[in-house]
Amino acid sequence: MKQIIDQSQKRVKADFIIQHAQIADVFNLRWRQGDVVVANGKIIAVSEPGEFEAEQVIDASGKYIVPGFIDAHIHIESSMLVPKQFNRIVLPHGVTAVVTDPHEIANVSGKAGLEFMLQDIEDVEMDIYFMLPSSVPGTSFENAGAVLTAKDLKEFIGHKNVLGLAEVMDFPAVLNGEKEMLAKLKLAQEYGMVIDGHCAGLTSSQIRGYRAAGISTDHECVTAEEALDRVEQGMYVLIREGSAAKNLKAILPAVTMANARRFAFCTDDKHLDELMEQGSINYAVALAIAEGMDPLMAIQLASLNVAECYRLKNKGAVATGYDADFIVVEDLQTMKALAVWKNGRKVAENGEMLSPAPEKCIVETSILQSMHLPELTVEDLRLPFTGNRANVMKIVPNQLITNRVEMEVDVANGHFVPSIEKDLLKLTVVERHHHVGTKAVAIVHGIGIQSGAVATTISHDSHNAIAVGTNDEDILIALKALQEIQGGLVVVNEGEVTASLSLPIAGLMTDISAEQAKQKLEKLHEGLHTIHPTLDYHLFLTLSFLALPVIPDIKITDTGLFDVIKFEHIPVEIINADE
Amino acid sequence: MKQIIDQSQKRVKADFIIQHAQIADVFNLRWRQGDVVVANGKIIAVSEPGEFEAEQVIDASGKYIVPGFIDAHIHIESSMLVPKQFNRIVLPHGVTAVVTDPHEIANVSGKAGLEFMLQDIEDVEMDIYFMLPSSVPGTSFENAGAVLTAKDLKEFIGHKNVLGLAEVMDFPAVLNGEKEMLAKLKLAQEYGMVIDGHCAGLTSSQIRGYRAAGISTDHECVTAEEALDRVEQGMYVLIREGSAAKNLKAILPAVTMANARRFAFCTDDKHLDELMEQGSINYAVALAIAEGMDPLMAIQLASLNVAECYRLKNKGAVATGYDADFIVVEDLQTMKALAVWKNGRKVAENGEMLSPAPEKCIVETSILQSMHLPELTVEDLRLPFTGNRANVMKIVPNQLITNRVEMEVDVANGHFVPSIEKDLLKLTVVERHHHVGTKAVAIVHGIGIQSGAVATTISHDSHNAIAVGTNDEDILIALKALQEIQGGLVVVNEGEVTASLSLPIAGLMTDISAEQAKQKLEKLHEGLHTIHPTLDYHLFLTLSFLALPVIPDIKITDTGLFDVIKFEHIPVEIINADE
Repeated sequence: MKQIIDQSQKRVKADFIIQHAQIADVFNLRWRQGDVVVANGKIIAVSEPGEFEAEQVIDASGKYIVPGFIDAHIHIESSMLVPKQFNRIVLPHGVTAVVTDPHEIANVSGKAGLEFMLQDIEDVEMDIYFMLPSSVPGTSFENAGAVLTAKDLKEFIGHKNVLGLAEVMDFPAVLNGEKEMLAKLKLAQEYGMVIDGHCAGLTSSQIRGYRAAGISTDHECVTAEEALDRVEQGMYVLIREGSAAKNLKAILPAVTMANARRFAFCTDDKHLDELMEQGSINYAVALAIAEGMDPLMAIQLASLNVAECYRLKNKGAVATGYDADFIVVEDLQTMKALAVWKNGRKVAENGEMLSPAPEKCIVETSILQSMHLPELTVEDLRLPFTGNRANVMKIVPNQLITNRVEMEVDVANGHFVPSIEKDLLKLTVVERHHHVGTKAVAIVHGIGIQSGAVATTISHDSHNAIAVGTNDEDILIALKALQEIQGGLVVVNEGEVTASLSLPIAGLMTDISAEQAKQKLEKLHEGLHTIHPTLDYHLFLTLSFLALPVIPDIKITDTGLFDVIKFEHIPVEIINADE
Repeated sequence: MKQIIDQSQKRVKADFIIQHAQIADVFNLRWRQGDVVVANGKIIAVSEPGEFEAEQVIDASGKYIVPGFIDAHIHIESSMLVPKQFNRIVLPHGVTAVVTDPHEIANVSGKAGLEFMLQDIEDVEMDIYFMLPSSVPGTSFENAGAVLTAKDLKEFIGHKNVLGLAEVMDFPAVLNGEKEMLAKLKLAQEYGMVIDGHCAGLTSSQIRGYRAAGISTDHECVTAEEALDRVEQGMYVLIREGSAAKNLKAILPAVTMANARRFAFCTDDKHLDELMEQGSINYAVALAIAEGMDPLMAIQLASLNVAECYRLKNKGAVATGYDADFIVVEDLQTMKALAVWKNGRKVAENGEMLSPAPEKCIVETSILQSMHLPELTVEDLRLPFTGNRANVMKIVPNQLITNRVEMEVDVANGHFVPSIEKDLLKLTVVERHHHVGTKAVAIVHGIGIQSGAVATTISHDSHNAIAVGTNDEDILIALKALQEIQGGLVVVNEGEVTASLSLPIAGLMTDISAEQAKQKLEKLHEGLHTIHPTLDYHLFLTLSFLALPVIPDIKITDTGLFDVIKFEHIPVEIINADE
């Protein structure tokens, strides 16, 4: 501190000065012409030109300096990258901090998963803050890899990067005041931590229950009306623009000069390829500007507001005393980062990291060996039928929801037979965490593959193995391949694995670099196109939500076909024609 | 929590509803028509009329409900009341929380003083938050009652009402990075606490040093330019409107819709009588509105913004999930509180507290017996002179500053003789804390009393005994009386104490009620008028700053006359005629 004070008072040279820039003043929503002076990782002055001396002087005439962007809510696992690698693709876009909910790995590996994530950020340039997963397992209608109780979560409080309790999704548990849920909420309150909400479709009246429970954010708003309701009720609204959910355009009309401080941006889930190509929050800022928002206000939502919401001290502004986390941009429309500075160090330039690729991460064996599929035979995949009418799951491409439809299906020798013509394929979920031995088989309509099978361990939220195929043999090969590569994504055609991406870290994340993973994903895409020549939706994404039993209409978990509307298991075959 | 959730979901009746009010929405700066529903001390809904059931329903047609006001910076001791009693005069005005710096009692009683203040808030209705005094003693040029080191302060961290480090005043110590000051700043940073500034007259460049030290507020701005400079540099500006300093009108032009979130209101010092008659932050809000500020914005500065600045969770808004701290007002111009609700309980109505007067507070003996004046004789007050030229302290009525003037004074038998005609009186400061035995005598111009003497132990920041008089005998009587009443305010005329107010708690605060104290203050005022028939300034206030050696031009401490410009002691007599 002594040295920074000395430097601020010009008794000691500063580290560097970026001169002649337009500097975003997120406190006044104005541009300031001047120099940014940095020392010891801190901004020590936004000064008149020539006022300071420094070891290094950089000219930024004609350019803008804006605070590093902060993602208010993300699940890093959705990028399939470990934090160390995620850092390398997001930071060059000017995203210098994220608040992540390690909910996916927690569902597979529990505490060991959280420990891994916290350990993996240790030498990472960007700031990665954590919210402690509040809903592991997601529901009691399936077998996940782990259970996290309030007592388990407590062990992580006190870590400097842990900010609070992650998105509270189990709204019946909150609104009914269920004991274990209250224990987690009380724990967070006791330590004065932030509690994130997940208020998808909740009514204004239900939000009251969330507020009574101390929940203070929502990233699930899809309309401006919902957003205003949340703000009126004292919540922060995290405007989401990710790979699956894109809510920015709908919510933006809710933001005014008077209430802007209660809004921020987040991605929630964003995939590797889109993160590499578009970035994350920089993209939301550019989109908001394209939609007519004042650039300074958009920048403020992406910086100061997140910092206030999560109480990130000295983050979110290019101003004296703040951490030197900022971006140099030339074009406010694209918000493309020419250079990214983190803690006073230039870490990326023209979209590339300046540091060498990191060592492979060290991962505990239990996380690296999370696959425990049973040996399966075609017997295990049989779906016995006495008639031919079935509850069929009809997918909605790229969406989380499904429809329940009643259809006549092909039956031979008392068993369901998939039909490529009718697009009625076999879908299976197999428990893969603890040799529980549970599995379920159902019929799905709308997948559209013409041959072969696909399988993955990215299967929200329990992340059991899920596979869909035109025939039992290829499904079995796909599952076997999944076991061999310790989880990931697999495409099988005519008895052979044609493409795969191993995700050995909990069956969710790769241990290779983003570039390598991207190449493998392209191969997978080719493999998919071979078995589905007219593919025009994100098959793996859609598949990954078919086992999430909190989203209507019907889903499949390792314990059977599940009617989300009735909130109970249902049989595949419809026996009673009156039903 | 379970019960509040049940009440929020209407499964259990709420406690009460205030119906048909206009409710201030400080998030959107809008008025909302509706009902405020309260349960268990929390606002569980701002609802449509008739939506909830409650034990009690109160009609507020034609009235406004606004959040309880929060004073961002005050020294409670300046009211001469202990927190328990202070609460009773401020809360009825709608001020439901204050952030206090117990700097005065700390200078007298050190840790015991802080402990007393923290203990005295225990059954108090309003929220009283503390900042830990950073500058005890104020300077090294005087003997205060205590020293508070970083180690001492550390003991108070963790108390739920302790928010941070109080106004850092010793700017040379900060800007030079002095060790003990850095230790306090680091301590506060280590615990993620707020650090208040005191940036009177600091240049924009000096503010950089304050920011480098992690200081994030300033309540000493006197111009809009200064205020904007602080905001640009990442500070909160606490707009002060107190008894002595009145900065609101000057700063208000700096506040815009874009930057309003970085402004709040404070009083710093406000006296008993003014607190009783005007209130505190309610007065600032009304004044801001009179000056043309949107009432909702003025309310926001007085509530949400302070809560954000000091991270007061669930404070500062009338919204779901917030603490039920609010005021019912009828007239937005006067902001007069018809009723005040705190934690869901009506605590005041029409300017009166509803609870009975509290028990007398329990105070440790060391605090109750803080007076240790030596036995003095006229010998002790002698000011020897060889010539007749003197450095005279010329007061500026009601101001903290003084002027140094060189004057010819009356001398008899080699000693200074006070002159009522020339208004050249004798001024003395006597150490009163630890029998150090130090005392100083000087000459003051401008006090204007025609006979007698006055004395007080309210004497910033060391709070030694200070007395001024027309003759030695009355000064001695005044000091003796101060000793007898264990500190306070004394007026003496013609050998007799004509009025006094005992402030037995550290010589700063009374243990009687505000009403009783006010009566005694009126008597003192009469006493003053007897010895100064044309009195038109606040004599005791002015006197109380004559021993504060950080304010120009010259001051007197127990160690002698002090030239603040030269920052050194100077003699009273000017010996060398060339000087």
